[in-house]
Amino acid sequence: MTDDIDFYFDFSSPYGYFASTRIDDLAAQYGRKVKWQPVLLGVVFKTTGARPLSEIPVKGTYALHDFERTARFHGIEYRQPPVFPIATQIAARATIWIRDTCGDEKAIEFAKAVYRCYFVDGIDIGQSENVVRTAALLGHDTERLSEEIAGTDIKDRLRKEVEQALQRGVFGSPFIIVDGESFWGFDRFDQINAFLRDGTIRSKNHP
Amino acid sequence: MTDDIDFYFDFSSPYGYFASTRIDDLAAQYGRKVKWQPVLLGVVFKTTGARPLSEIPVKGTYALHDFERTARFHGIEYRQPPVFPIATQIAARATIWIRDTCGDEKAIEFAKAVYRCYFVDGIDIGQSENVVRTAALLGHDTERLSEEIAGTDIKDRLRKEVEQALQRGVFGSPFIIVDGESFWGFDRFDQINAFLRDGTIRSKNHP
Repeated sequence: MTDDIDFYFDFSSPYGYFASTRIDDLAAQYGRKVKWQPVLLGVVFKTTGARPLSEIPVKGTYALHDFERTARFHGIEYRQPPVFPIATQIAARATIWIRDTCGDEKAIEFAKAVYRCYFVDGIDIGQSENVVRTAALLGHDTERLSEEIAGTDIKDRLRKEVEQALQRGVFGSPFIIVDGESFWGFDRFDQINAFLRDGTIRSKNHP
Repeated sequence: MTDDIDFYFDFSSPYGYFASTRIDDLAAQYGRKVKWQPVLLGVVFKTTGARPLSEIPVKGTYALHDFERTARFHGIEYRQPPVFPIATQIAARATIWIRDTCGDEKAIEFAKAVYRCYFVDGIDIGQSENVVRTAALLGHDTERLSEEIAGTDIKDRLRKEVEQALQRGVFGSPFIIVDGESFWGFDRFDQINAFLRDGTIRSKNHP
């Protein structure tokens, strides 16, 4: 099959950011494209009862260390944002509007810029003005964008898309679906690679 | 440094089992030994508010699939146990008693046998008689063992060891500490390998 790969992510998720720096290249190795789909973990977590990693006792301290170490291990630029975690509906809405008006490629370009803005430059992309500025730097109509992300149309679109994600079993970020097979986490990229290559996960010991 | 590697695990944890099949070989590559330390996730989870993976909505369904797929990917024998998850204090107490009376090597041999009993043969090692039978097959004094795992001495020892683990930041299984550096999860074995090799985690891109 050569269907698109579904890539679900939250803009406040470090592991989602790590995945965002690699997913297109991984897919391209197998002639695939990636459908980038922002979701809101705040909504998703209501289903699973989860909390933001960094707010969990003991585990939160480890997570902050693991973000930085995992970035270093994989050679990904990363700085722990001073404001973390954040609400990401504005960034998600903007991505959807850009996808609708300018197409997938422009939406991906924008999402990558937003992620970089947050996890490299430390700018709080929970704030509308920072999201709009990122869009401006990419040449988008920011007057129109500012209106749209405050309106109900895109808000409803995003809510529906998050609901659809939940129905597909998305419970975290990054969450990747390839030909109906679901993978959660940047640390499943080796399994995703094997699945794209073989169409299944074979045993290393019994090929 | 050549200090022992601390390996914390719960006998009901599939990812702990996966780690148990690889940790000694990984350590041996770098001239290290491993200190196997059973913990009780039921106690640990009280600190973090976590729940057994398989009981979490949506995520639980994924986890059951991921256990089986991850085992296959790594070529590890695995069958989802019919009774899951289970209480593991009996198995943990038995491991501590064997360590105290017969030494580390015998305790590791026993722990591996218990894990295999549960995750390959599907036997409920939450039941005393199954733990004792596993010990019997390895030539241990089962009459003495049966008394000890029901007594207060080993019970207190285990409780103290779990408390010490909590104080060292252990919040899940497997949890590995190498020279003061903590790693959570079987999917951090590539980072543990790099850390053992280099004494740090260097960037792949900027060595």
